[in-house]
Amino acid sequence: MLRTTFNSLYRINNGVRYMSTSTTNDKVVGFIGLGNMGGHQAMNLLKKGHKLVVYDISKDNVQKLTEKGATSAPTPADVAKQADIIVTMLPASAHVRSVYLGEKGILSTVKKGALLLDSSTIDPQTARDVANDALKAGAIMLDCPVSGGTGGAEAGTLTFMVGGAETDFERAKPYLQAMGKNIVHCGDVGTGQVAKVCNNLVLGISMIAVSEAMNLGVKLGMDPKKLSGIFNTSSARCWSSELYNPCPGVLESAPASRGYTGGFGSALMNKDLGLAVDSAKSIGEPLPLGNNAHQIYTMMVTKGLGGKDFSAVYEFLQKNK
Amino acid sequence: MLRTTFNSLYRINNGVRYMSTSTTNDKVVGFIGLGNMGGHQAMNLLKKGHKLVVYDISKDNVQKLTEKGATSAPTPADVAKQADIIVTMLPASAHVRSVYLGEKGILSTVKKGALLLDSSTIDPQTARDVANDALKAGAIMLDCPVSGGTGGAEAGTLTFMVGGAETDFERAKPYLQAMGKNIVHCGDVGTGQVAKVCNNLVLGISMIAVSEAMNLGVKLGMDPKKLSGIFNTSSARCWSSELYNPCPGVLESAPASRGYTGGFGSALMNKDLGLAVDSAKSIGEPLPLGNNAHQIYTMMVTKGLGGKDFSAVYEFLQKNK
Amino acid sequence: MLRTTFNSLYRINNGVRYMSTSTTNDKVVGFIGLGNMGGHQAMNLLKKGHKLVVYDISKDNVQKLTEKGATSAPTPADVAKQADIIVTMLPASAHVRSVYLGEKGILSTVKKGALLLDSSTIDPQTARDVANDALKAGAIMLDCPVSGGTGGAEAGTLTFMVGGAETDFERAKPYLQAMGKNIVHCGDVGTGQVAKVCNNLVLGISMIAVSEAMNLGVKLGMDPKKLSGIFNTSSARCWSSELYNPCPGVLESAPASRGYTGGFGSALMNKDLGLAVDSAKSIGEPLPLGNNAHQIYTMMVTKGLGGKDFSAVYEFLQKNK
Amino acid sequence: MLRTTFNSLYRINNGVRYMSTSTTNDKVVGFIGLGNMGGHQAMNLLKKGHKLVVYDISKDNVQKLTEKGATSAPTPADVAKQADIIVTMLPASAHVRSVYLGEKGILSTVKKGALLLDSSTIDPQTARDVANDALKAGAIMLDCPVSGGTGGAEAGTLTFMVGGAETDFERAKPYLQAMGKNIVHCGDVGTGQVAKVCNNLVLGISMIAVSEAMNLGVKLGMDPKKLSGIFNTSSARCWSSELYNPCPGVLESAPASRGYTGGFGSALMNKDLGLAVDSAKSIGEPLPLGNNAHQIYTMMVTKGLGGKDFSAVYEFLQKNK
Repeated sequence: MLRTTFNSLYRINNGVRYMSTSTTNDKVVGFIGLGNMGGHQAMNLLKKGHKLVVYDISKDNVQKLTEKGATSAPTPADVAKQADIIVTMLPASAHVRSVYLGEKGILSTVKKGALLLDSSTIDPQTARDVANDALKAGAIMLDCPVSGGTGGAEAGTLTFMVGGAETDFERAKPYLQAMGKNIVHCGDVGTGQVAKVCNNLVLGISMIAVSEAMNLGVKLGMDPKKLSGIFNTSSARCWSSELYNPCPGVLESAPASRGYTGGFGSALMNKDLGLAVDSAKSIGEPLPLGNNAHQIYTMMVTKGLGGKDFSAVYEFLQKNK
Repeated sequence: MLRTTFNSLYRINNGVRYMSTSTTNDKVVGFIGLGNMGGHQAMNLLKKGHKLVVYDISKDNVQKLTEKGATSAPTPADVAKQADIIVTMLPASAHVRSVYLGEKGILSTVKKGALLLDSSTIDPQTARDVANDALKAGAIMLDCPVSGGTGGAEAGTLTFMVGGAETDFERAKPYLQAMGKNIVHCGDVGTGQVAKVCNNLVLGISMIAVSEAMNLGVKLGMDPKKLSGIFNTSSARCWSSELYNPCPGVLESAPASRGYTGGFGSALMNKDLGLAVDSAKSIGEPLPLGNNAHQIYTMMVTKGLGGKDFSAVYEFLQKNK
Repeated sequence: MLRTTFNSLYRINNGVRYMSTSTTNDKVVGFIGLGNMGGHQAMNLLKKGHKLVVYDISKDNVQKLTEKGATSAPTPADVAKQADIIVTMLPASAHVRSVYLGEKGILSTVKKGALLLDSSTIDPQTARDVANDALKAGAIMLDCPVSGGTGGAEAGTLTFMVGGAETDFERAKPYLQAMGKNIVHCGDVGTGQVAKVCNNLVLGISMIAVSEAMNLGVKLGMDPKKLSGIFNTSSARCWSSELYNPCPGVLESAPASRGYTGGFGSALMNKDLGLAVDSAKSIGEPLPLGNNAHQIYTMMVTKGLGGKDFSAVYEFLQKNK
Repeated sequence: MLRTTFNSLYRINNGVRYMSTSTTNDKVVGFIGLGNMGGHQAMNLLKKGHKLVVYDISKDNVQKLTEKGATSAPTPADVAKQADIIVTMLPASAHVRSVYLGEKGILSTVKKGALLLDSSTIDPQTARDVANDALKAGAIMLDCPVSGGTGGAEAGTLTFMVGGAETDFERAKPYLQAMGKNIVHCGDVGTGQVAKVCNNLVLGISMIAVSEAMNLGVKLGMDPKKLSGIFNTSSARCWSSELYNPCPGVLESAPASRGYTGGFGSALMNKDLGLAVDSAKSIGEPLPLGNNAHQIYTMMVTKGLGGKDFSAVYEFLQKNK
């Protein structure tokens, strides 16, 4: 196997154990994609004492990090020349392809044995394709999509769903732990994205289910807190009901109780369900409710609700809203 | 108010407190509908020492109870002549109408002040209509649908969702506690059915969501136990994933791991989602995923899977099954 | 057979041929339900020289007919005392039950052998039930729902879909021809409603299909007239594209080209698809697209588009509308 | 405009009118993709006297044409070296990219001014991308997807939906007329595919609509011929009802009356609706019924009905089938 051979050689040449936290901070960590999520993640790596070299298309985003001690590089390729580990956090598959495979991309200059951690949410096939190209360039790429939102990114409590070989996962762990709390090994390369996509498929559907049921129950005369209380102690129990109830007033902490602001936008849920729909289509598997749910979020975006939290589907079902 | 007046008169005439457990066992309890659920419920009432008079269209069902000490009556009307409290457990709205309002029905002979506890799952409107007729006949009817299945019925651990006035709920409680563990007051008459219908709406949708996502994930190369483990610690967490996972082998105790036998049949879930769909339609509220889910269970029934547990939707999505 | 016997007796007693146009105008025709459709239908019967006795809950509606020569009656029962033929045009099943079976209803006083023509659109089961009650009361009821809208009602060009025995259909024909152009015998009692419900099921779905496809094509750069021209000469050809295109400007005569006014309201299509959904549900047949289409019209009604023509689903799919 | 300039230069350099049928037969016509459709199309070009050079991955397919007078070439590039006009008929977007853009692809050797007619059904974006690359290589590419099936291909009665500039369309016409009867200019490059995709979107949905309605009507007691007769003279009229009715026995000529053999396979309809779904998704437009219909055909394929005509959805809705 190409990969095994490469890994073995690499270990011999370097002669170090990557899991050792004592050596972790000596490595240069690259970070590409300093948006709402990535900016916080990079900051947490800095706080944990990592040497950081960063890149983003927005100079403002870069400046926030350089002010705190990071250095910057003019292209992904220039990040890759210096970094032993590179974390990327990008909006979609096309950006990942471009940042890794483009002319000034990471793989054009990547160090042999570098560890590439892509925390973007993209389709599993792209994750596998780019990881394969990385391997040809002598580097190891893991897909590490996250859940936990901007709140979790800031607090450093993200969940990382990681796809890649067990040993590579162990190498990646200390860096991911600097940004998150729950680091889950899902299987081979690509399975991190599979786990993320499948999780959000259930989530996106459940939220509509709870919204339909809360709306129906309330219209039929039930008190919303009582109804959600019954759900939460019965077989309708789910995260969308218990921790993120879409009916205003049921949970003070939920976006529903502050006009569906903050949280996870409908447009983002629409994107994630789009990945599920595409993945299922590419392998010919049916996804009847997933497709229907995707269409509902697409209509919400069409009607101008893309910026509201995805639990605003409760509102979307209402009259005159 | 008619109701208040009637209740007050009734209390004066009788001069007893209904909550008192000491008097509970002196009352005659009628039970109508001794099927898979009702048979166990009636048995539990017997075990708690209640005097039971029963009726069912099946003589075999009746005999099982009379062998244990119940007496039988030839019609619902004959049950009603003797009973202070009557519990009914019937398949659908039409049966409830017939047993209560029919020629030899309960209301034709019901005692003044009798407490009528309907634990059937029916549409909220029928529950309200029949309760109204009961009131005109001088009796109090509560809707008390259950969750927990035949296992819960046998073990006496059912959840009762109860619609009716607070004081009537308190009167009913000791009898319901003889058959169940969790007795929840939902609000006015009809809200027990609303809670049940809304709960099962979320449940029926969630099960399909988890099935689609488990199927997709497994086909994309993930280990099913790992995938459900991620769901259960993340935002996809729900009863259908955690306690009743539809993928064979994930949970030993789930119907999926024993060929989708036992459990809650697809035909029953199809019926319950039908109630949700009808209720939403009757008040003009949209229920897009609910309708789609209902159609999926209808197709399962059409294809001969009505007798299998509703989590067999996982199998229904598979090739060649 | 009860029915055959009754019909034979009736013919012997009367000794006349009912198809004869010479005798048609001697009969008293009752008309109940003088709304947007029924008002025009009654007027056309008057114009053809029929003696008309009418009833409606609105005095204004009644007056419009009495001004033109009709007489009025204070209740359906009073209409039925005088009329040999009664036409009804009512909003929904509940009204049909009430007008025929209610306390002052038609069947309480109906003449032996009277011909009852219900042109309301209702569910087939109610049509069969009421026809059965009519038979017990000595009268013949046919279900005769129409298509053609208020325009067709005014112009006397409606299509009638008629359910009932062949001979009864022949008796009814001259009266229906006074109000419509195309009189179709569908089969036994109830099949008129079946035909209507199934026709509108296809229509309601097709309109959304054409709307989705026109919207997609236009957004992808096609000229809408060219696109619909291709549809109309190819396998996408359908009434919704050819004669009622939902894209503004394609057909000058279509509601789409006048702000979706006139025509057949979304709320009415929502009602008709509701009948299809209910009918399928009552016999356990799947209707996946029918249910989905029904939900789309329900959401249109929820969002305040119930009064617009049903082709406004094109607009409903648009951004910011 | 690059294109105009190029076209003008080309015309000056060549100094001929391409529409002239007298010169048409002097040109060498390449044909790539000799499957069920393409084989017949190539044969029709031969019959009309065109010099044909062909390529296909199957030697058997090639031999059928060389036996009738065509010459063969070992790669698409070798076809392109000789041909003035090239027609391609390929299964999907990936094949089109490969045959045009691959190492031994058409564009690697294409003659300046060559006319490239792609009659594959692919997504509009790929059609535009490849046409753009063709233009850079000095050739003109038009998207010319067809409708009419293998029957139309054999009889030379296909409909071609053509995207490209008006003058290029006129150049292409004589060649397309050798293979089809109805040659429709849809607009700019890509609009041929848009028209095809939108047409089949309506078709795929209509077929399910008619199947649901025929099934419902028959189950409710209507004669299927009578029901379809009503559809065909009313607002449910559509190609799927009138010319291709999915209910066995209604039309002798339809696939439904011969066990759903021949015709247009469910797997192909699934593919075409997949293109519609992808196109809508790529521009963020909703397609609720289109997605649902796509899922229904996906489930048919999953259940082993992919090889049957797409009207077998009627059967798919039946019990025990």
